[in-house]
Amino acid sequence: MNASEVMHIGELLKNSPRNWGKWGDDDEVGALNYLDTAEVLRGATAIRSGKTFTLAIPMANPAGDPLWPGRQPASRYNVLDRGDFAAGAGPAIPGGNEYADDIMVIYNQGSSQVDALGHVWYDNELYNGYPAETTAHTLTKASILPIAERGIVGRGVLIDMARHRGKASLAKGETFTHDDLLAAAEAQGVEISPRSILVIRTGFIGSFWREGAAEFYRDFNEPGLVYSPELVEWFQRMEIPALVTDTIANEVTVDPNTGISLPLHSALMRNLGVTFSEIMSLDGLAEDCAADGQWEFLYVAAPLKVFGGTGSPVNPVVIK
Amino acid sequence: MNASEVMHIGELLKNSPRNWGKWGDDDEVGALNYLDTAEVLRGATAIRSGKTFTLAIPMANPAGDPLWPGRQPASRYNVLDRGDFAAGAGPAIPGGNEYADDIMVIYNQGSSQVDALGHVWYDNELYNGYPAETTAHTLTKASILPIAERGIVGRGVLIDMARHRGKASLAKGETFTHDDLLAAAEAQGVEISPRSILVIRTGFIGSFWREGAAEFYRDFNEPGLVYSPELVEWFQRMEIPALVTDTIANEVTVDPNTGISLPLHSALMRNLGVTFSEIMSLDGLAEDCAADGQWEFLYVAAPLKVFGGTGSPVNPVVIK
Amino acid sequence: MNASEVMHIGELLKNSPRNWGKWGDDDEVGALNYLDTAEVLRGATAIRSGKTFTLAIPMANPAGDPLWPGRQPASRYNVLDRGDFAAGAGPAIPGGNEYADDIMVIYNQGSSQVDALGHVWYDNELYNGYPAETTAHTLTKASILPIAERGIVGRGVLIDMARHRGKASLAKGETFTHDDLLAAAEAQGVEISPRSILVIRTGFIGSFWREGAAEFYRDFNEPGLVYSPELVEWFQRMEIPALVTDTIANEVTVDPNTGISLPLHSALMRNLGVTFSEIMSLDGLAEDCAADGQWEFLYVAAPLKVFGGTGSPVNPVVIK
Amino acid sequence: MNASEVMHIGELLKNSPRNWGKWGDDDEVGALNYLDTAEVLRGATAIRSGKTFTLAIPMANPAGDPLWPGRQPASRYNVLDRGDFAAGAGPAIPGGNEYADDIMVIYNQGSSQVDALGHVWYDNELYNGYPAETTAHTLTKASILPIAERGIVGRGVLIDMARHRGKASLAKGETFTHDDLLAAAEAQGVEISPRSILVIRTGFIGSFWREGAAEFYRDFNEPGLVYSPELVEWFQRMEIPALVTDTIANEVTVDPNTGISLPLHSALMRNLGVTFSEIMSLDGLAEDCAADGQWEFLYVAAPLKVFGGTGSPVNPVVIK
Repeated sequence: MNASEVMHIGELLKNSPRNWGKWGDDDEVGALNYLDTAEVLRGATAIRSGKTFTLAIPMANPAGDPLWPGRQPASRYNVLDRGDFAAGAGPAIPGGNEYADDIMVIYNQGSSQVDALGHVWYDNELYNGYPAETTAHTLTKASILPIAERGIVGRGVLIDMARHRGKASLAKGETFTHDDLLAAAEAQGVEISPRSILVIRTGFIGSFWREGAAEFYRDFNEPGLVYSPELVEWFQRMEIPALVTDTIANEVTVDPNTGISLPLHSALMRNLGVTFSEIMSLDGLAEDCAADGQWEFLYVAAPLKVFGGTGSPVNPVVIK
Repeated sequence: MNASEVMHIGELLKNSPRNWGKWGDDDEVGALNYLDTAEVLRGATAIRSGKTFTLAIPMANPAGDPLWPGRQPASRYNVLDRGDFAAGAGPAIPGGNEYADDIMVIYNQGSSQVDALGHVWYDNELYNGYPAETTAHTLTKASILPIAERGIVGRGVLIDMARHRGKASLAKGETFTHDDLLAAAEAQGVEISPRSILVIRTGFIGSFWREGAAEFYRDFNEPGLVYSPELVEWFQRMEIPALVTDTIANEVTVDPNTGISLPLHSALMRNLGVTFSEIMSLDGLAEDCAADGQWEFLYVAAPLKVFGGTGSPVNPVVIK
Repeated sequence: MNASEVMHIGELLKNSPRNWGKWGDDDEVGALNYLDTAEVLRGATAIRSGKTFTLAIPMANPAGDPLWPGRQPASRYNVLDRGDFAAGAGPAIPGGNEYADDIMVIYNQGSSQVDALGHVWYDNELYNGYPAETTAHTLTKASILPIAERGIVGRGVLIDMARHRGKASLAKGETFTHDDLLAAAEAQGVEISPRSILVIRTGFIGSFWREGAAEFYRDFNEPGLVYSPELVEWFQRMEIPALVTDTIANEVTVDPNTGISLPLHSALMRNLGVTFSEIMSLDGLAEDCAADGQWEFLYVAAPLKVFGGTGSPVNPVVIK
Repeated sequence: MNASEVMHIGELLKNSPRNWGKWGDDDEVGALNYLDTAEVLRGATAIRSGKTFTLAIPMANPAGDPLWPGRQPASRYNVLDRGDFAAGAGPAIPGGNEYADDIMVIYNQGSSQVDALGHVWYDNELYNGYPAETTAHTLTKASILPIAERGIVGRGVLIDMARHRGKASLAKGETFTHDDLLAAAEAQGVEISPRSILVIRTGFIGSFWREGAAEFYRDFNEPGLVYSPELVEWFQRMEIPALVTDTIANEVTVDPNTGISLPLHSALMRNLGVTFSEIMSLDGLAEDCAADGQWEFLYVAAPLKVFGGTGSPVNPVVIK
């Protein structure tokens, strides 16, 4: 199918649920509103051993940064270091301290990141009904700033779809549903309780370094969740505040039923206000959870407070 | 005093304690080693109400970003948004989703940030004795990456020096000691227990927006902790893993006794391996702590995993 | 006057001449079409002594870069140099050559620059009638690329308005007309012949360094040419291909008669296709011309071939 | 050969001529000193038809920018355009003008460019004997700025080695000598007179777009001039001020006789002060020269006045 033959997403989602207005006309954080103090306390009860894990992948990695085609990886450059001082070109600091300084050029969506709720839309309306024109030049509504002000803290649960299917990584285009998530959860012996931060491992992001960039981008079609009205209803009923995966876009790239690109971005993020966190590294966490049988934890993530940003790099922390 | 009349910091600190080798020849995270699972659990016991706070200041703020003289604030630019799609210049996406994308140019030390242990040194040696040449081009030792891999999680305690002295903000060049911290802690009714993450509020960073950039940078000399051998011994004895403040450099800019610039960066960071987190926004947290009388909390921060970075932006989360 | 009380520029220019279609429906270089081989040869006849002058101001100047409010000056950073090699952090090159490498972040309009013809417009149409939507995301019409492919080569003539009025610099908001240009030319003993590249010195740009940035931007209103129907007719009749000045915007910032901002950008650039080159350094050239009495020359300038660019930095060469 | 088996370039060039001190201890433009007013006038006599050519390749080209491995191509981004104004997100300008604005991130050596004389060195000394430490942080000696202040103007001559050898492009690693240049010049019917700006076409840069990046960089070894003492003596005797080619580095990448990488950068640029201009597009000019039999012209190039820069993008103009 080419783009012109694919149905419009507005048609697909015409009866799909929305949370617009649910948290006020000025709301910009959506389903994160589910994460009230009770949910923070519930997450805290999952802290048992004191083990911690960080979920970001490296940035400006000499081995390459996997990212959505068209974006560019972070570029980092020293602008002051011992070389400058050794050559007599550093500033003269009273007492003789020396220091290193550096800059980066980044895509805010170009590494482990949280999407602003205004990052994706259709039919000229964002989450909560904000006009899409509010994204022009700088996001004046539903930017990453309110999410960064609030932070994302609650009970997280890891569902390891790759392990459940006995694979190092799901295959390109391989899909799964909420029923698959529930079956995997049951096999893991963990419950996806309402308002859980849903962390899903596919094993896919690691294939970038294992198999190389050329193979990673060839016929690019990530594995992931697949759209169905029932899946969306399940997210809504479960009041899932945030979806976190080890893929670039948190869902199968091309919906196999309609050919639509990334329908869940609209069904879940735009319509329900579910926060998307993408390109996470989950292999180490999954190893540990498989070893100790504890698949739930306190999940703590706070993107940067980027004024008007479409998203921000983030390094979530899991505390078990 | 001008630079040439000031004593060398190596002379000042010749008998100052060091933790080099304490955690192995390859250690790159220093005093964060104190934050073991027991400390994470201790921090978790401070979670009572489920209230959360994020500590970063905004980036690319139209009202200006306070930062060390010579650095530049983050620049953020939309590179795709509704304007482009409305003009027919966006990509054709099957199904009709549209999206906004943006880039940033940042100094890694140019906003709320964690310093890598290799960020500051003297006498050609970094923390743990790594040669200063390892900072050249990219930090091959003691970069921000290992700190970002580990995260900073433990019991945090807020000491509100501004409130203790009855001021909105400490004055330029105003100093305080560990004895002052202890007195403030006692007045607040909280204990700075060993291995606490030490968060100190001066009220100073807010003066950037209250009084304007010109006043902020005039005769630039931030308030803060002042070097003494006893202060350093206290940090060492208390096994403080991390120092967090609402100033740009976490200590009085010019040491009033010697004229040395930023001696604690070397005494604490280089020698003891204490992690510095700077330019934090603490006013909201302080208000809440004063209101409910709870000055301790779980502190969770994870800078970005910047390969070879001198530091990284960060948005710490406090959970009470 | 505030913006809403000012007449619309489309009203002001409703009867103003246009060259749209004159050089074909696909033309993107406008009045540079006047600079045919005959004009190049005419310019070459002005070469007498072999003296050369370059007209750009420095970029990334530690003393500051004057530029339109809201833009940022060029930032240049070494990313490799002797410091890195001395520290053992440079690449190992067979034979032992070493080298220095650097990057820049620039506004294409942020220093001595040539404007693309699509840089400014009104009523949703650019030069030659291209829809303004063609500027979205990247200039697909009337970008700087076609101008850079062609270059700007012809007979140039310098009119020194500051000298003519006996001033180091024209004052803020000071204006002059084509009649003033003709009077100054007569006083200088030079003719503004048809198809001359018109180079006008106001002395203003130098005030940025002489008087400081604060004074430069205070009540920002550059001196320059002032709109009148007669002035536009004169440019059209004279077939002026290019206008070059030592101000940021080549005309008085606020038109004193209407309050319109920069009407000549539209009257001359958008409607007639006159190329604007801005922020030039003309003091040295003017000194020489006053000394030898030769105010005409071969003018050679070629902006960078920036794909889709709104303009490009340039360093014009004058050959006398 | 690997790097450690290759002789040191200082050994290769120990008896090679130098122009250090020839134009004063403070000289930073080297052999461009040969281009005095007489040479400018000589160049002007080559103007016959008034035809002009610009020599840069496009920057930020969607089809890719060829550049030295490890550097990155220019990235250009609109930061304001019609899309923003249409969405109501542009500034309100009195009168209603609208405009487009953009930024670029560039390597100064990452497109058609002029090298500063301090760009390459060995044995800790640059051109004119400046210490290599002067390159640290910013080039305080022999940066691109003095070359940009002066400009490069003189008689240019094109030698078309590809055409001379009957090829679209020289092959990888294919070399030629000054004797080959003289033979080609004789065949073309043009003289390489003393002080000529030497422009050499290999046809190689076009292979980047014809054959693709993968093929271009495979076993990367550009064709070009090959080092010999006689070649260096010839450049010195001929007082060649500048070397311009359609390759990335103006010489065969790996010297076939010694394995040294880019020895002519040191023999000609560092020692003799010859200015290198690289990555030029010469196919159109060559076509025209072959057609009209005129291989000489006025050559006019002025890099940007980048303070402390290692080089600068440039778009040279040829006038026939």
